[in-house]
Amino acid sequence: MKIEGKNAVLEALKAETFTVNSLICEKGDNGKIVNLARQKGAKITFVDKSVLDKESVEGKHQGYIADVTDFKYCEIEDILSSSESPFIVVLDGINDPHNLGSIIRSCECAGADGVIIGKNRQVAVNDTVVRCSAGAVSHVKIARVVNINNAVRQLKQSGIWVYALDMDGEEITSANLKGAVALVVGGEGSGVSELTRRCCDGIVSLKLKGKVNSLNASVACGIALYEVVRQRG
Amino acid sequence: MKIEGKNAVLEALKAETFTVNSLICEKGDNGKIVNLARQKGAKITFVDKSVLDKESVEGKHQGYIADVTDFKYCEIEDILSSSESPFIVVLDGINDPHNLGSIIRSCECAGADGVIIGKNRQVAVNDTVVRCSAGAVSHVKIARVVNINNAVRQLKQSGIWVYALDMDGEEITSANLKGAVALVVGGEGSGVSELTRRCCDGIVSLKLKGKVNSLNASVACGIALYEVVRQRG
Repeated sequence: MKIEGKNAVLEALKAETFTVNSLICEKGDNGKIVNLARQKGAKITFVDKSVLDKESVEGKHQGYIADVTDFKYCEIEDILSSSESPFIVVLDGINDPHNLGSIIRSCECAGADGVIIGKNRQVAVNDTVVRCSAGAVSHVKIARVVNINNAVRQLKQSGIWVYALDMDGEEITSANLKGAVALVVGGEGSGVSELTRRCCDGIVSLKLKGKVNSLNASVACGIALYEVVRQRG
Repeated sequence: MKIEGKNAVLEALKAETFTVNSLICEKGDNGKIVNLARQKGAKITFVDKSVLDKESVEGKHQGYIADVTDFKYCEIEDILSSSESPFIVVLDGINDPHNLGSIIRSCECAGADGVIIGKNRQVAVNDTVVRCSAGAVSHVKIARVVNINNAVRQLKQSGIWVYALDMDGEEITSANLKGAVALVVGGEGSGVSELTRRCCDGIVSLKLKGKVNSLNASVACGIALYEVVRQRG
């Protein structure tokens, strides 16, 4: 996939989750990004700005467009072993890459140990996700699994309390979210699927005081993440 | 402006903040929306689906495209008079209509009494904002002011504690957000402007535990809003 923009390309060069195959940049550029790309063995092509403008998908290349390997996902075990008391987010059917990017960004800011996403009914980590995550994809462990319900069962077997964030549950501020905890967040519109809800230890909900009875998925996830942060102190 | 989609058109017809001038819908439609549009005196045109497909900007018309008057903003006084202990959100430079829509949606869900936005350096309530708000623009009072700093001063004179949500402030969970309170949220990237920060009673911040040192603006606003909800109980 293509990644463009100064920060996004720099993060991709530094990250273990991508390999930068090639980079195109402006003639005469001998800056930090070019030197790092050289060290990493990427093929570098120097072009006129007009070529970058033409190759750019988002029109925000800032002088750099890189061709990188697909995102390297980790295993659930890698996430579990990263903390004695893990804080994990499980995503069940997030289809909008902007929401996925924003959620990964929030997870990184909240200090979550990892994110688990499904292979089906769910957008993968693509270039839009990378951009919307503001580089956070390089700093959060992300596992991709075929079966979300099996993943939830595995977390429970590892001693993690798994809560679905959904309607009609216990108010999140009253639930005990200290210790090893995972939050399952459902897709835009659909929410957490019924089967997955039943696999969880409990349901937690945000208070909705208006007539519009749902928040944007990435906003709801951010609020829930920071309730965990608050309780963990 | 044009509003499309079943829910968005229905909300616009019910709302006092819009007037629906005309509606185009499919031939033979005699449902709830058509009848309400008739009652409200909108000009109704029945067309083939292909015409709706052609007129649609977002490709999500669901059989309805309405031409509505621009959003009718209220005055700050209308917001102040709606509660003895108002909870207000002030937006300082939100440029992305998706973020503005999402923030208005969060405000409605959190039970905020109103939103104040600036006329400059700030997107207005347009069709994208209406769509991203999931209809919330019809249920939240929104005032639009020339000068955000004067608005902040007016709120303070009315006995409201005004906090800027920004970096390097008191951690939000330790601040006292009970009672009459306003949160000032800055734009993507830029944050709350220095002059506005100085007008506020205090700065509150979200804990950032990772390497990416900011959240998406609408996510940050949602988290702060729900901290107010939690404290107000």
